[in-house]
Amino acid sequence: MMKTNPMSQSRTIQTHLILPPDTNHHQTIFGGKVLAYIDEIAAISSMKHAQGEVVTASIDSVDFLSSAKVGDVLELDAVVSSTGRSSMEVYVRVTSTNLITGEVKLTTESYVTMVAIDKNGKSVPIPGIHPETDEEKRLFETGPARRAHRKQRLEMKY
Amino acid sequence: MMKTNPMSQSRTIQTHLILPPDTNHHQTIFGGKVLAYIDEIAAISSMKHAQGEVVTASIDSVDFLSSAKVGDVLELDAVVSSTGRSSMEVYVRVTSTNLITGEVKLTTESYVTMVAIDKNGKSVPIPGIHPETDEEKRLFETGPARRAHRKQRLEMKY
Amino acid sequence: MMKTNPMSQSRTIQTHLILPPDTNHHQTIFGGKVLAYIDEIAAISSMKHAQGEVVTASIDSVDFLSSAKVGDVLELDAVVSSTGRSSMEVYVRVTSTNLITGEVKLTTESYVTMVAIDKNGKSVPIPGIHPETDEEKRLFETGPARRAHRKQRLEMKY
Amino acid sequence: MMKTNPMSQSRTIQTHLILPPDTNHHQTIFGGKVLAYIDEIAAISSMKHAQGEVVTASIDSVDFLSSAKVGDVLELDAVVSSTGRSSMEVYVRVTSTNLITGEVKLTTESYVTMVAIDKNGKSVPIPGIHPETDEEKRLFETGPARRAHRKQRLEMKY
Amino acid sequence: MMKTNPMSQSRTIQTHLILPPDTNHHQTIFGGKVLAYIDEIAAISSMKHAQGEVVTASIDSVDFLSSAKVGDVLELDAVVSSTGRSSMEVYVRVTSTNLITGEVKLTTESYVTMVAIDKNGKSVPIPGIHPETDEEKRLFETGPARRAHRKQRLEMKY
Amino acid sequence: MMKTNPMSQSRTIQTHLILPPDTNHHQTIFGGKVLAYIDEIAAISSMKHAQGEVVTASIDSVDFLSSAKVGDVLELDAVVSSTGRSSMEVYVRVTSTNLITGEVKLTTESYVTMVAIDKNGKSVPIPGIHPETDEEKRLFETGPARRAHRKQRLEMKY
Ligand SMILES: CC(C)(COP(=O)(O)OP(=O)(O)OC[C@H]1O[C@@H](n2cnc3c(N)ncnc32)[C@H](O)[C@@H]1OP(=O)(O)O)[C@@H](O)C(=O)NCCC(=O)NCCS
Ligand SMILES: CC(C)(COP(=O)(O)OP(=O)(O)OC[C@H]1O[C@@H](n2cnc3c(N)ncnc32)[C@H](O)[C@@H]1OP(=O)(O)O)[C@@H](O)C(=O)NCCC(=O)NCCS
Ligand SMILES: CC(C)(COP(=O)(O)OP(=O)(O)OC[C@H]1O[C@@H](n2cnc3c(N)ncnc32)[C@H](O)[C@@H]1OP(=O)(O)O)[C@@H](O)C(=O)NCCC(=O)NCCS
Ligand SMILES: CC(C)(COP(=O)(O)OP(=O)(O)OC[C@H]1O[C@@H](n2cnc3c(N)ncnc32)[C@H](O)[C@@H]1OP(=O)(O)O)[C@@H](O)C(=O)NCCC(=O)NCCS
Repeated sequence: MMKTNPMSQSRTIQTHLILPPDTNHHQTIFGGKVLAYIDEIAAISSMKHAQGEVVTASIDSVDFLSSAKVGDVLELDAVVSSTGRSSMEVYVRVTSTNLITGEVKLTTESYVTMVAIDKNGKSVPIPGIHPETDEEKRLFETGPARRAHRKQRLEMKY
Repeated sequence: MMKTNPMSQSRTIQTHLILPPDTNHHQTIFGGKVLAYIDEIAAISSMKHAQGEVVTASIDSVDFLSSAKVGDVLELDAVVSSTGRSSMEVYVRVTSTNLITGEVKLTTESYVTMVAIDKNGKSVPIPGIHPETDEEKRLFETGPARRAHRKQRLEMKY
Repeated sequence: MMKTNPMSQSRTIQTHLILPPDTNHHQTIFGGKVLAYIDEIAAISSMKHAQGEVVTASIDSVDFLSSAKVGDVLELDAVVSSTGRSSMEVYVRVTSTNLITGEVKLTTESYVTMVAIDKNGKSVPIPGIHPETDEEKRLFETGPARRAHRKQRLEMKY
Repeated sequence: MMKTNPMSQSRTIQTHLILPPDTNHHQTIFGGKVLAYIDEIAAISSMKHAQGEVVTASIDSVDFLSSAKVGDVLELDAVVSSTGRSSMEVYVRVTSTNLITGEVKLTTESYVTMVAIDKNGKSVPIPGIHPETDEEKRLFETGPARRAHRKQRLEMKY
Repeated sequence: MMKTNPMSQSRTIQTHLILPPDTNHHQTIFGGKVLAYIDEIAAISSMKHAQGEVVTASIDSVDFLSSAKVGDVLELDAVVSSTGRSSMEVYVRVTSTNLITGEVKLTTESYVTMVAIDKNGKSVPIPGIHPETDEEKRLFETGPARRAHRKQRLEMKY
Repeated sequence: MMKTNPMSQSRTIQTHLILPPDTNHHQTIFGGKVLAYIDEIAAISSMKHAQGEVVTASIDSVDFLSSAKVGDVLELDAVVSSTGRSSMEVYVRVTSTNLITGEVKLTTESYVTMVAIDKNGKSVPIPGIHPETDEEKRLFETGPARRAHRKQRLEMKY
């Protein structure tokens, strides 16, 4: 049987100071900037697991629950939450912190699917994962339902 | 009765040459770069309609159906496809063209929801839209179903 | 006889939202930013025509007739307007739109000469063009005069 | 007596995938890129502690012990390690990971001094810190010696 | 009588290492990148003379005489070469150096017209210049002819 | 005996206009931006001397003596000040100029050590230098003391 990696192996954290170029007129961060950060951390997290190159296959719907402003700190926390043959689902949680008040707000949660590929862009098999903490277990156990929902979505769409 | 804008008023096109900084090891464009482009064009399209500032409320699931490489041309085409009181759904279609062979591939289709805001970040009312072409009519008529599905998704999530 | 491409094959559009990093103290876009956009769209337009790599040989004088500010939308429209053996003249028209008032202003018009090259940077032959619309005809017919003037300019300069 | 913050309050982590634009001809990351990352994380870490704006007063000598290549992951870990009236010394540790082999190498360690400032750029007082873990204690206790050495260095230089 | 500044007061030099993000497939620098550098140095040079904010009014035709590759050094040298009431003509000379062979090639020469402006974007008067070296004299004396030619060009165009 | 290069061969100047994306809330340039500029000019200066590729080995402590604001001009001046077998010490001097008042302030002075490398990243021998002006002589003669101090620092650190 193939060995599995602990979920913690793919755990990745990023902290960004929000600067003027990342924001619109009202000094609120662009949604597109947050999406680019989410994709970047999902790539790093899944590369730690797959130990090779990956591409983004899809990103589930993203709802921006609160805005973040210039001078706030944006924190992203990612972990591979479910695996298939070649695909990995990465759970990404994004929060913003107002440094003056210390208030922390949930910006968004997101699931990104990355696929491990070889030099020709063909999908290659990856190890499985096993959860260790309670939070990891919750993510791991709800994975198959999310995968099924995603498959159905893709079939309906095209 | 409030006047409505023709959908064509918000129609926006962007053409990008894919360059090395936008790509990974295999010279394939990053998903995050495509997402950032989608958000940018959705913002421009909805600002043309709302004639004021907007923020991104959500982006529906995005499936990357084919990859695009360094030297390909990425084309984005966006239009406001449905409106609420202050929110606008923008339909974005992304294709890539291999300039040598002339082959055009669908990269992804996506629906982004933008909200018109005032200086304090509060949502403000926007005009409605009316379709003129057949393609616009199809997008316009299927709008309410997508809105309902989005509402339901948000309620289930949190 | 070599086949010619319709001018419309090289037609390219770009739409940019002007953001703070593109602007000076008075929030007016830098001329250099506009020039970089003009060169980029001229490259894409001529690559669509030549179906291969190109380099910029020259840009005719550019007059900035009106300024564009943060929050305005800059639109560029380009088409190959004249061809030689290996060189293509690309006509680029740049306008800015104030989204609040809807006012559209001509920022500048420009002619860029791109040359099709092979892997060693040597010029290679390209197809000719034929105009279809009235505006295309006007551009096409005035091409030889501009080429002659450019040749003369280059000889006088060095 | 003024309250002190636990050192852990300023703890900050950043993870970067090294991309071609960050590297030279041999695909090795630029020292200047690493220095910019070190300054950015030191700013975030000290802002978490000071709960206000900061400027970089100085950075101690930085030795680059090993190089990192395109495709490697660079991880930075920062914590406020010593405090004065208005100045904070931030300890930053940088490692690179080869994702294929899993090998982790120390890139550099660095001490950055940040000063808390008000709107006029004048230095303002900050809280002290207290260590909790063994590693924090070691950093905390060796702080005064580093401060003294830095003061001496500054006096000798100018 | 108004005092004039020596031309040397506006003399400005920039040196850039050409990196992959600045180049196309064949690792040749983009014309648009060179144009952006030319505008930036012309802005700095004219701001040194005018001691205030400026905008780019126009750039004369630019011919790219030779290409520059990744790893080459691009050097720009600029000086205010002629002045009007509010406008300044800046002469910019661009060369590239192959560091391995030491060979220096002329990339292009260019004249940029910058206009000094106040907070409302209205043109404001600037001091005149006086040349000191022989090369400055040559540039200074040929200025009025170039201004006349430019005026004529602008009248013919629109 | 190996020939030496005059120090002037490596002399390099860079002039930057400070723009909003380079600055924090108070419109003061980031220390990290200055450090990245210092590393870039040190690389160019040492490549001019070594006529080949280089990597950054270390940077001596940097004290930021005064801040520079949006709209100021930052000028960097670099020269190879001492050489070993494969390593070069580059002296970099950074000043900022307020264009309105003309006031020039010393931002920082710094010594960067660059090492000449071949395609495999192995260090390669470089020519020596000889000073010509008085300022060059002062830098050249104090070089060995700085090298000794650096060696000692590295041994104490690890
Ligand atoms: C992702 C991609 C490699 C899948 O190709 P494919 O021919 O479907 O490959 P396979 O059939 O081998 O499927 C590989 C895995 O991807 C999964 N997958 C494919 N499309 C998916 C989608 N839209 N969402 C989630 N998973 C998807 C499959 O279920 C399969 O999972 P498994 O191996 O764990 O069972 C391909 O669609 C692609 O290259 N897309 C573009 C990726 C890209 O470049 N993204 C960046 C921006 S465009
Ligand atoms: C453009 C370039 C390839 C032309 O090289 P060349 O040796 O003159 O090549 P050719 O004699 O074969 O001329 C090729 C075509 O370019 C045209 N051309 C050359 N210089 C030109 C100029 N300054 N303006 C307009 N057209 C020009 C020629 O008229 C000829 O046109 P045609 O084939 O349609 O008759 C060469 O000058 C070059 O590489 N320049 C640098 C390009 C570059 O790297 N630009 C980016 C920034 S530096
Ligand atoms: C850092 C700066 C605010 C200090 O100003 P100052 O007039 O010396 O202020 P103070 O005398 O009140 O000193 C403030 C603190 O900074 C410390 N400090 C000053 N220079 C320092 C240096 N080079 N290294 C370490 N600490 C330094 C002082 O020891 C003092 O510490 P303390 O309050 O904990 O006792 C000032 O030098 C400055 O603005 N420098 C430029 C900062 C900047 O813009 N950096 C970005 C790139 S240029
Ligand atoms: C440049 C600009 C301020 C001139 O405005 P204007 O109403 O013509 O102003 P004035 O009549 O006072 O002319 C000011 C000077 O500019 C000169 N000028 C105007 N257009 C020019 C052009 N295209 N080329 C060269 N000089 C020009 C005039 O000759 C006059 O020179 P002088 O004062 O030395 O005699 C205006 O056209 C403008 O704002 N353009 C956009 C600038 C910009 O934003 N550029 C960045 C990219 S869009």
